[in-house]
Amino acid sequence: PKSYNITLLPGDGIGPEVISVAKNVLNLAGSLEGIEFKFKEMPMGGAALDLTGVPLPEETLTTAQQSDAVLLGAIGGYKWDNNEKHLKPETGLLQLREGLKVFANLRPASVLPQLVDASTLKKEVAEGVDLMVVRELTGGIYFGKPRGFGTNENGEEIGFNTEVYAAYEIDRIARIAFETARKRNGKLCSVDKANVLEASMFWRKRVIAIAAEYPDVELTHMYVDNAAMQLVRNPKQFDTIVTNNIFGDILSDEASMITGSIGMLPSASLGESGPGLFEPIHGSAPDIAGQDKANPLATILSAAMLLKYGLGEVKAAERIELAVLDTLNKGFRTGDIYSVGNKLVGCKEMGEEVLKSV
Amino acid sequence: PKSYNITLLPGDGIGPEVISVAKNVLNLAGSLEGIEFKFKEMPMGGAALDLTGVPLPEETLTTAQQSDAVLLGAIGGYKWDNNEKHLKPETGLLQLREGLKVFANLRPASVLPQLVDASTLKKEVAEGVDLMVVRELTGGIYFGKPRGFGTNENGEEIGFNTEVYAAYEIDRIARIAFETARKRNGKLCSVDKANVLEASMFWRKRVIAIAAEYPDVELTHMYVDNAAMQLVRNPKQFDTIVTNNIFGDILSDEASMITGSIGMLPSASLGESGPGLFEPIHGSAPDIAGQDKANPLATILSAAMLLKYGLGEVKAAERIELAVLDTLNKGFRTGDIYSVGNKLVGCKEMGEEVLKSV
Ligand SMILES: CC(C)[C@H](C(=O)O)[C@@H](O)C(=O)O
Ligand SMILES: CC(C)[C@H](C(=O)O)[C@@H](O)C(=O)O
Repeated sequence: PKSYNITLLPGDGIGPEVISVAKNVLNLAGSLEGIEFKFKEMPMGGAALDLTGVPLPEETLTTAQQSDAVLLGAIGGYKWDNNEKHLKPETGLLQLREGLKVFANLRPASVLPQLVDASTLKKEVAEGVDLMVVRELTGGIYFGKPRGFGTNENGEEIGFNTEVYAAYEIDRIARIAFETARKRNGKLCSVDKANVLEASMFWRKRVIAIAAEYPDVELTHMYVDNAAMQLVRNPKQFDTIVTNNIFGDILSDEASMITGSIGMLPSASLGESGPGLFEPIHGSAPDIAGQDKANPLATILSAAMLLKYGLGEVKAAERIELAVLDTLNKGFRTGDIYSVGNKLVGCKEMGEEVLKSV
Repeated sequence: PKSYNITLLPGDGIGPEVISVAKNVLNLAGSLEGIEFKFKEMPMGGAALDLTGVPLPEETLTTAQQSDAVLLGAIGGYKWDNNEKHLKPETGLLQLREGLKVFANLRPASVLPQLVDASTLKKEVAEGVDLMVVRELTGGIYFGKPRGFGTNENGEEIGFNTEVYAAYEIDRIARIAFETARKRNGKLCSVDKANVLEASMFWRKRVIAIAAEYPDVELTHMYVDNAAMQLVRNPKQFDTIVTNNIFGDILSDEASMITGSIGMLPSASLGESGPGLFEPIHGSAPDIAGQDKANPLATILSAAMLLKYGLGEVKAAERIELAVLDTLNKGFRTGDIYSVGNKLVGCKEMGEEVLKSV
């Protein structure tokens, strides 16, 4: 049988619970399609800090780089919140993204008919929302240099960062976004702040240049403040959004909350080659960790993205996607998406129900 | 009688229409309180570009600086969208903010009971929302240097900006925010991205230092991506938000859309001393310009903020605020806030109705 090496990074908080469930689902979906997985579990985030003193041990990165795909639970927690920068769980995640060179972060946000009531938006505004945020993930202000603390010309203390994009960084994320839009409804909205920032003016210029390669995709531009409004006003207007690292961080989280079911949303981070990184978009939720309350569906759907985008195993991916829909149709709900008339289950039971439908 | 010099900057699109209405309201409210206004109307934005070749003529800035307060309509339009940076209407606005040294931008977002249905959020989520975003307005990535275009060490073309804050810039906006929170419900949420950016770590450190001066205000911190989510999930949790220039741009627009009535929302931009700048938060809406369709209430309420925050004329300000509520209670609505059962009016008629109640 075909065989893949998967690195599992359970991380912190609810991470280990959701990863353990997703691993079982991945195993079953694979075996039904004649695929074998070899899993290697490695420490990362706060768990790695406690164990090894750093948020991304070298061995974790090397293992991830040498595997076929990486599935991450979640990282972070109150315990490490006041750590110095190089000792923050988040820094480990940024190092992992950089180390895997996964510059393209795909974040779907869609409202399932079964869960439309979970949105805080009115039903007529929320229903039918189905958008994809393509976020640049290894550049911009997250990684730009110079950065740090210092003093300005008046001797005053300052903190500073650099927002910077090179042409090749914009070109490659734009191409991923155009390809993504082409496979969806052919509409791409590039979000920037080109009325103020040079980095955004350059972004827009390059996106327009790349657009020539995709005459079949309709390209529009929107300022980030307007995009933040339009996501609330009428999210259905969007098909695919492409934007820089920091705007993508903000807008993809806003978009995910609009669906009302952030416990449902997966993400994929991809590079030119090499293993992709797949993770739920929710955080480590330390308040409910270890209580079997977490919703594992976002991680299960991330495993489906791993199969589809990471390994090209579309059939196994679809098994998982359909199993999730099936489980929702049967009325199984974790607390975060529960509504009256449905069956409240914990993390493990939700996983077992999905397994029944794989 | 007391007399004030007011600079009017109608600007572009619907700017002239809403300014003309607000001017009449200001005049009447003033005269009923024994206040006289001397208005001077000056070109700015696209209008100034067409007239003088620059978006903020020196004479406009000098007049504004020498007056007691500045009331701005709106700027920008498709016509100038592709202008070079120094010839963009937006650049004129940034120069005006810098020239007036108005570092504190107050943006209230509240849902009026009369207009709760205008929100795309469910009624139970929207009703009772009453928050204030205090946005730093003359620093950060909007003004940080170095900025521009160039090549990196590999000879690749780049575009770049600098996010930078000095201690005094954070301290003074933090103080304004704590004072604001103190007059409201005593809760201040500082929004940053301190898990990634040094500029944000420094921001958080200074805000915490200033908090010692305000033991009666409850300070919390939130990451910007989470704040973008929480505004959709449960906007009622917020009282006062303080944040940097770019995050404030994004979050205040998101917050305003949550109220569903962006045509209703005013803003005030204040410095240590000197005239404040007051403007509706909506844009120039070129698509409805000159059609008598614009909602003048945001500009009228900006005039009320001008009286209250700019001149300390609280009584005249309250006259205007009450007149606006009264007019809404009578059922008058412009198109943007219209719902069945109310009376649809244009910009001018709305202004006349407000005048009746001043
Ligand atoms: C944890 C944090 C560093 C991270 C980010 O800002 O990218 C997270 O918010 C995300 O979006 O994956
Ligand atoms: C027009 C633009 C420069 C401006 C800004 O980004 O500050 C606007 O969006 C605002 O919020 O007042």
